[in-house]
Amino acid sequence: MSVPRYEVIGVEGIGEVRPGDDVAGLIVDAAAQQRTPLATGDVVVISQKIVSKSEGRLVRLTDVTPSPAALSMAAHLDRDPRLVEVILRESRRIVRMDRGILISETHHGWVCANAGVDQSNVDREAVALLPEDPDRSARMLRERLRERAGGDVAVIVADTFGRPWREGLTNIAIGVSGIAPLQSYLGQRDPAGRELQATILAVADEVAGAAELVMGKLARIPVALVRGLDLPAGEHGSKPLLRDPARDLFR
Amino acid sequence: MSVPRYEVIGVEGIGEVRPGDDVAGLIVDAAAQQRTPLATGDVVVISQKIVSKSEGRLVRLTDVTPSPAALSMAAHLDRDPRLVEVILRESRRIVRMDRGILISETHHGWVCANAGVDQSNVDREAVALLPEDPDRSARMLRERLRERAGGDVAVIVADTFGRPWREGLTNIAIGVSGIAPLQSYLGQRDPAGRELQATILAVADEVAGAAELVMGKLARIPVALVRGLDLPAGEHGSKPLLRDPARDLFR
Repeated sequence: MSVPRYEVIGVEGIGEVRPGDDVAGLIVDAAAQQRTPLATGDVVVISQKIVSKSEGRLVRLTDVTPSPAALSMAAHLDRDPRLVEVILRESRRIVRMDRGILISETHHGWVCANAGVDQSNVDREAVALLPEDPDRSARMLRERLRERAGGDVAVIVADTFGRPWREGLTNIAIGVSGIAPLQSYLGQRDPAGRELQATILAVADEVAGAAELVMGKLARIPVALVRGLDLPAGEHGSKPLLRDPARDLFR
Repeated sequence: MSVPRYEVIGVEGIGEVRPGDDVAGLIVDAAAQQRTPLATGDVVVISQKIVSKSEGRLVRLTDVTPSPAALSMAAHLDRDPRLVEVILRESRRIVRMDRGILISETHHGWVCANAGVDQSNVDREAVALLPEDPDRSARMLRERLRERAGGDVAVIVADTFGRPWREGLTNIAIGVSGIAPLQSYLGQRDPAGRELQATILAVADEVAGAAELVMGKLARIPVALVRGLDLPAGEHGSKPLLRDPARDLFR
């Protein structure tokens, strides 16, 4: 049996992405340019930021009028009230609001700081929102990558989220197409014959994290190819990663 | 400039590990046997399970007498009182206890289910505890790997933990030697000239997750080599990953 191994390849040279840009085309061209063309079986991990920009998910803060609630919360948090207004619009529930930190549940169901609204890497007065439907974005990018590259790849749209108890952000999957985001060992037996319990791995998040290690925030590498993993297919996008609130001890 | 890329290589053939075994020697031999010998700069990710076993961190449930508190909690959780007793001994604080789930803070400060006490992959009546000091384990393994392999590698001792809000476990770092577990972009500027905020990546966790993708739970691959990453050195082990309780909104 061959040694289990895989490779992660950063895709450079994609450049600044603007609303309406064909991100899939940019990826295919940049990967070919650096002589690592896309190949069937690759998982293409794409930073949420360029997906959001290409979809025009940008808001100019100068166009935002904060509500009284946003003004009050912004004073408490010592944040820009226009930014707080945008975060509230992107949220369906506030999870924590303290010490300048605003953690909310987005309309998609993701729990993260600032509802994923991001000021960095965008021009000074604009903020980027998460894609409206990151699974749809992943599906459409996957189809377009297949058209342009001729091979079947999977796509993960990824963003860096914090988490309780541990310092540091990790890159995780917010949109998925072509793989199952969870891999389950339930019902299999360990070498002692005992049925393994609760062994479900969030492989899409691990793939997103693996990709981040070549992406970096300032290296201008918003895409990585993860090559050589044989992950099971799946048709439910990122949804299996969302914990059912009824099962969540940390609402 | 060359394309940023790295590789993850599973190390097969390590076999069952027993108390007193020389894990570093087993890794060096198994990696050489499959013709992927360790190389300077590798990050060697090692499953906590084999580290704990080699260190004799095993408890036989038949030797455990549950305290009255363990008996009461076990009834509430519908779990084995002897196992609950072991978990309580490994914990300094209970974080959540509900619906059969016991989440605690270990004496190291990690927050996880069952204080990291694990029944799978060990013989039927034994449970494995986390290493007493996973950073010390990582340091000693690193030294021993250097002696045996002749090159300087980094070591991550990793375990699979759950997290709030998202389904699925991910592999994360509980012991680190030779790299800084966090990589900070604080103070750098994005292309628009704005100072980036709060951009600290938990690279050790991302590396652990990347390794898990070739490890698997039943594939008997407890070690992976992560090759080609150039991560900054660090001398504080895994400690920077522990969030200061004073800064934690999710105590």
